Amino acid sequence: MVNTVFRDPIYGYIRIEYEVIKKLIDTKEFQRLRRIKQLSGVSMVFHMAEHNRFSHSLGTYELAREVLEHVNDVKNALTEYEKVVFLCSALLHDLGHGPYSHSYEDIFLVNHEIMTNKIILGDTEVNKVLKEYNDNLPNDISSIIAHEGKYEIIEDLVSSQLDVDRMDYLLRDAYFTGAAFGEIDYEKILRGMVIRNNRILFKATSVPNIEDYLMSRYHMYYQVYYHPVARCYEIMLEKIYARIKYLIENNYHFKTNLNLLIKSLNNKDDVKSYVEIDDVYINGCIKSFLYEDDIELRILSNKFLNRRLFKYIDLRFASNDDIEKIALLKENPNYYYIEDNVSKEAYSYKNNDQIKILLPNEKIMDLIEFSPIVEAFSKSSSKINSIIVYEEKYV
Amino acid sequence: MVNTVFRDPIYGYIRIEYEVIKKLIDTKEFQRLRRIKQLSGVSMVFHMAEHNRFSHSLGTYELAREVLEHVNDVKNALTEYEKVVFLCSALLHDLGHGPYSHSYEDIFLVNHEIMTNKIILGDTEVNKVLKEYNDNLPNDISSIIAHEGKYEIIEDLVSSQLDVDRMDYLLRDAYFTGAAFGEIDYEKILRGMVIRNNRILFKATSVPNIEDYLMSRYHMYYQVYYHPVARCYEIMLEKIYARIKYLIENNYHFKTNLNLLIKSLNNKDDVKSYVEIDDVYINGCIKSFLYEDDIELRILSNKFLNRRLFKYIDLRFASNDDIEKIALLKENPNYYYIEDNVSKEAYSYKNNDQIKILLPNEKIMDLIEFSPIVEAFSKSSSKINSIIVYEEKYV
Amino acid sequence: MVNTVFRDPIYGYIRIEYEVIKKLIDTKEFQRLRRIKQLSGVSMVFHMAEHNRFSHSLGTYELAREVLEHVNDVKNALTEYEKVVFLCSALLHDLGHGPYSHSYEDIFLVNHEIMTNKIILGDTEVNKVLKEYNDNLPNDISSIIAHEGKYEIIEDLVSSQLDVDRMDYLLRDAYFTGAAFGEIDYEKILRGMVIRNNRILFKATSVPNIEDYLMSRYHMYYQVYYHPVARCYEIMLEKIYARIKYLIENNYHFKTNLNLLIKSLNNKDDVKSYVEIDDVYINGCIKSFLYEDDIELRILSNKFLNRRLFKYIDLRFASNDDIEKIALLKENPNYYYIEDNVSKEAYSYKNNDQIKILLPNEKIMDLIEFSPIVEAFSKSSSKINSIIVYEEKYV
Amino acid sequence: MVNTVFRDPIYGYIRIEYEVIKKLIDTKEFQRLRRIKQLSGVSMVFHMAEHNRFSHSLGTYELAREVLEHVNDVKNALTEYEKVVFLCSALLHDLGHGPYSHSYEDIFLVNHEIMTNKIILGDTEVNKVLKEYNDNLPNDISSIIAHEGKYEIIEDLVSSQLDVDRMDYLLRDAYFTGAAFGEIDYEKILRGMVIRNNRILFKATSVPNIEDYLMSRYHMYYQVYYHPVARCYEIMLEKIYARIKYLIENNYHFKTNLNLLIKSLNNKDDVKSYVEIDDVYINGCIKSFLYEDDIELRILSNKFLNRRLFKYIDLRFASNDDIEKIALLKENPNYYYIEDNVSKEAYSYKNNDQIKILLPNEKIMDLIEFSPIVEAFSKSSSKINSIIVYEEKYV
Repeated sequence: MVNTVFRDPIYGYIRIEYEVIKKLIDTKEFQRLRRIKQLSGVSMVFHMAEHNRFSHSLGTYELAREVLEHVNDVKNALTEYEKVVFLCSALLHDLGHGPYSHSYEDIFLVNHEIMTNKIILGDTEVNKVLKEYNDNLPNDISSIIAHEGKYEIIEDLVSSQLDVDRMDYLLRDAYFTGAAFGEIDYEKILRGMVIRNNRILFKATSVPNIEDYLMSRYHMYYQVYYHPVARCYEIMLEKIYARIKYLIENNYHFKTNLNLLIKSLNNKDDVKSYVEIDDVYINGCIKSFLYEDDIELRILSNKFLNRRLFKYIDLRFASNDDIEKIALLKENPNYYYIEDNVSKEAYSYKNNDQIKILLPNEKIMDLIEFSPIVEAFSKSSSKINSIIVYEEKYV
Repeated sequence: MVNTVFRDPIYGYIRIEYEVIKKLIDTKEFQRLRRIKQLSGVSMVFHMAEHNRFSHSLGTYELAREVLEHVNDVKNALTEYEKVVFLCSALLHDLGHGPYSHSYEDIFLVNHEIMTNKIILGDTEVNKVLKEYNDNLPNDISSIIAHEGKYEIIEDLVSSQLDVDRMDYLLRDAYFTGAAFGEIDYEKILRGMVIRNNRILFKATSVPNIEDYLMSRYHMYYQVYYHPVARCYEIMLEKIYARIKYLIENNYHFKTNLNLLIKSLNNKDDVKSYVEIDDVYINGCIKSFLYEDDIELRILSNKFLNRRLFKYIDLRFASNDDIEKIALLKENPNYYYIEDNVSKEAYSYKNNDQIKILLPNEKIMDLIEFSPIVEAFSKSSSKINSIIVYEEKYV
Repeated sequence: MVNTVFRDPIYGYIRIEYEVIKKLIDTKEFQRLRRIKQLSGVSMVFHMAEHNRFSHSLGTYELAREVLEHVNDVKNALTEYEKVVFLCSALLHDLGHGPYSHSYEDIFLVNHEIMTNKIILGDTEVNKVLKEYNDNLPNDISSIIAHEGKYEIIEDLVSSQLDVDRMDYLLRDAYFTGAAFGEIDYEKILRGMVIRNNRILFKATSVPNIEDYLMSRYHMYYQVYYHPVARCYEIMLEKIYARIKYLIENNYHFKTNLNLLIKSLNNKDDVKSYVEIDDVYINGCIKSFLYEDDIELRILSNKFLNRRLFKYIDLRFASNDDIEKIALLKENPNYYYIEDNVSKEAYSYKNNDQIKILLPNEKIMDLIEFSPIVEAFSKSSSKINSIIVYEEKYV
Repeated sequence: MVNTVFRDPIYGYIRIEYEVIKKLIDTKEFQRLRRIKQLSGVSMVFHMAEHNRFSHSLGTYELAREVLEHVNDVKNALTEYEKVVFLCSALLHDLGHGPYSHSYEDIFLVNHEIMTNKIILGDTEVNKVLKEYNDNLPNDISSIIAHEGKYEIIEDLVSSQLDVDRMDYLLRDAYFTGAAFGEIDYEKILRGMVIRNNRILFKATSVPNIEDYLMSRYHMYYQVYYHPVARCYEIMLEKIYARIKYLIENNYHFKTNLNLLIKSLNNKDDVKSYVEIDDVYINGCIKSFLYEDDIELRILSNKFLNRRLFKYIDLRFASNDDIEKIALLKENPNYYYIEDNVSKEAYSYKNNDQIKILLPNEKIMDLIEFSPIVEAFSKSSSKINSIIVYEEKYV
């Protein structure tokens, strides 16, 4: 047993008690998460949101640890080995994210959960540390990440509609954006956690806090993560990634050394190259693109670095002039023109991972049956942020 | 102009700039609010909630002051005199509350808004201070309190579905109960305030914060203000008030000196007596009731003082045994038996004081049309907290 | 084992795990602490500081519980029985406080620690609950309160220069006054706690936080607890208590029923009467004094209730005019005239309960040797707040 | 006049009211501050401290704006033009910082205040925006930065021992490290600000808050900024910078394209190149150094990227074994060996920019005469953090 702490503004301390956790944090692959920001474009709107995935991963781990400390049902249900599986899964769940993750995944067709598992199972420092603890540990963690259903309780805790991952990022992103929305009472939610039939349920008394959590999630998506200015930044980045891809496919001769990226894209199993690619690498490339011959790449990179963001029209509030302008932009080949529609269900009431509520009389209900608020809310919150993003191309 | 401040955990400072406000705070009638708790029975559940109506009144004033400082439309629309009307109305709006207000009002048929106006207009220190500033001031403030529609903007700000009163008490009660629910972003809501056609409206961009405010209000009512234990305490107090009333009507000879209360009840215009009645007065009476001959009053007072709260059954979670028990209690003359149903609309979408939203294109919509969340929410949040409260009588 | 919580703004939750603690909280003597404010006169300056000794007692208990949870040395050093002794001592340490405690003690010569032990050992509900758990429990707790040295570790934790009592009241009073001073990092201080030779020591790494704690304590005393306006209020109260005492001694016939107070003062072992005396009782008496024949008592009571505070001159900033005025006041028999000097050492470096620091090489040093800041600070912080408090007598 | 805000966790909002401020924020040189972290090595210890100089610059501006809003003496003393000088100086004061600023300055002999003025006065977007407002603005701001004494009040506010710069970074760094130390009551300090004889003074009533501020500063330096692990990281970076410098001077042929850096170092007036150099640029170089022929640069870069920090021995706690080890390390040519002594006066009581206190009788005193705490404190806080940092060279 070790006794190390990280000071953390959200939980006071992140407490490390197992040697294996300490060693995982020191691996090269986990330290890489320091160089991948949590909210790429959001810091263009909320200037303090510079925090990285390293912090969020530690926070997710800490919440898992607090579940083991405070939730009796979980403490009693899991074996010592399973506790370690749980803690490691929470810690490592975001290991496979790429730089500016969502754009990277969309353009280069990389899935971060699959990459997480490649890192856990591949020839990496993380894999070595896990194996040293127990030969089965890498496989068992990767089964959690892949939702294989082998450890139902742990999957419920790490990856469901109300899990330690989501709770940490709401709390953390709210702290660093300064948005009041994210204030959720995670201690109260933990107090409501119980186990029945090998699944995580919540007592009826914690429903108000769950309602609050869903409302927070809803607001964080539409006001923060999907803020139009953040979207413009993401789209600019997608254009850069798409241009890189196009140029590679057309055998353009880059002055910039892109070997690492190309190697990684050519072979998704090349984990060694993949983990070299982070925000620092991409930012360095973009700086260097200022000196490329390809005019489009050069101009996009300049805009990215000097924050000359793409423009947008919010369709909810479009005036007649705006509608006319949009018609013209759509036809104009000198403009980038993107119809951007993003939406997120705060609560997915249709699929089969419903949040389950335990009544004092031991009856179990779906959250949506129990809470008219959640019912009304989930049926009407399928809002879509629709904007037209545009920008003159060669200027 | 003066420059006095009160340190306040919610706003940092409460800033007093007008001489008339300073003098009002020093009046006997306003100082009395120090001796009337904001949340009577709630402190039986949330042990820190001992704050008084004095603080809430100062806080409501401060929010009004911040509206004048930060909301350009209001700053420009009001004359200097109207600004003073606004600030005084905010400060004095709760002046007429009685001790353990809601029970007192219900049993003794006293209305706190009417009493507020009697104090403002009667022979009081408050009235003298107001008149000294301007002869019309008492009448103009009382017209706001009585919703006479003379000053529409000020009425919207002081007493509507989204006003400085409600915002302050949500923030303040949340701080002192420790409930995470009450966190609302009042600065953002203020930033959205505009005036059109002599009414207060809110820009579309502040709707997420208004949604959040309504959700907070909903949760504070059902989780805090209407908590079953708080209800049990209120009901016990009502029984005491009702017994006092019964004994007075039946010419019972009290050992306790109740002259003040009786005088005040006999003549609702006797403001001088009314303002002598506060929590201290009532608590003193109840202590003294321990020595009364009337056994019921004596026993109730003992339970009240030693926190032997009435018991309850929550009907949402009633078991079969509970149902049987209720049937028996209902018929048993040795028991107090109360069916307690309380409900509060977080947002009243039917009456004509809808929150109005201003779109960027200057169109005006009702909040409920603009926000599907609020629509769903207000139509499904007419929840009722139903409990059976009971207690053996002569034990 | 039970599992009850109280929501608390300072610690999130106060967690009750032992049946005996739950029962103690429900006793009449502990519930009485709800009716004794923590900071009597301070709420005249900091309007939100209405919290009571009930909250502070729960908070002190919770800090004790966190010591048992997080400080390995303590967890391992104490037997199960000693843990209960520790938790109960923390919970009950303030049981014997009177209403407006310091004035009451000074005038009526009552010592709150002695009264605490009378309640613990006397014929009370608290005593019954303790005995039910273990026959020795009342004696062992009272030995802690009386500093008898039987349980050194527990005494260090409950009552030393850096104990759970002081940490809770700094945190709590700061929260409710809104003073930024009280922000101390109690978790970090707990992390530094170790045991050597059966005494509590602190690791060198926690010294910065201890320095910060002492600075907080210093500022809270001089800026909050000893604020001149709070002092004026206390002194007014002392005059009332002194007048009551004088009148009793001179067989004045009170209209007000003072039997309880007189019984309690005549026999300090009459615990039953003592616990009936609380803020509510005293406030009720003072209200009733408005109708007494004794003019001095009547006028003092009126000033107290309507917050006509005594006036003061701060000697640090006295002008020549002030000095002249003081000379006149001193001789004027129509004035109350009090020279009020209060001081508090933030850290007593002379007596033998020094805070001890453990170096990494296992050497032990006095805090004052280790920290030049604390040395300089304690030698120069023996500041005295000196004010002249005065008030015309029969007006 | 504009009305734009940035959401900020420290002040709620950063409010932009002047067009010129809005335009300055949008310049390329100001946006560059997004890519320079506020606390380079500190994020190795406090994992959330990833915030940048952009935020701190906005925060410093906001505090300046609040001074103009709340401090009557300043509001009245400054002309409209001087207000703009003040706001711009606060906003731009850190413009000239290099990447990982202190190491960069030490090795490459660049002074950030001089560079700030080169940017303000040179051929830059910032200069253009300033001139557009008023031809004298660049010169007047640069006179503030250079402490020329032309605008004494503004210099006191922007750059003294108690200025808007220091207050913002204490508050901000505390928020992002999670250190409780930095909690200062800046509103109270602002309330104490007055002007006499064209200088900023503080009322005696704000001295407790100034004492608190100095204590915070002291603790932030020794516990956060000078944390041994942060020092090890800085020193590693210095070694990299020093190696680059050595290799350039010895005409080593870099594979990495270092044109920009070399151009900038050769000509300190080449502002255009200097502003291209930021954390992103340096991080990109270091990644590329992994492929350099120079073994020392290659190994240092690898350690830097994978957080293989240099080791250290804290001399305060050195054991005999440590002393022996140090003797060996000192002589061993295969080791980097650095004696690192850092110290910071929390308050410089010797030079002539003492904080001045205004007494109620209009006497003026040096802070140190007025406050025995500050006197004791400044004379004993010249603490030195001494560590031996070492690392095997070619491993």
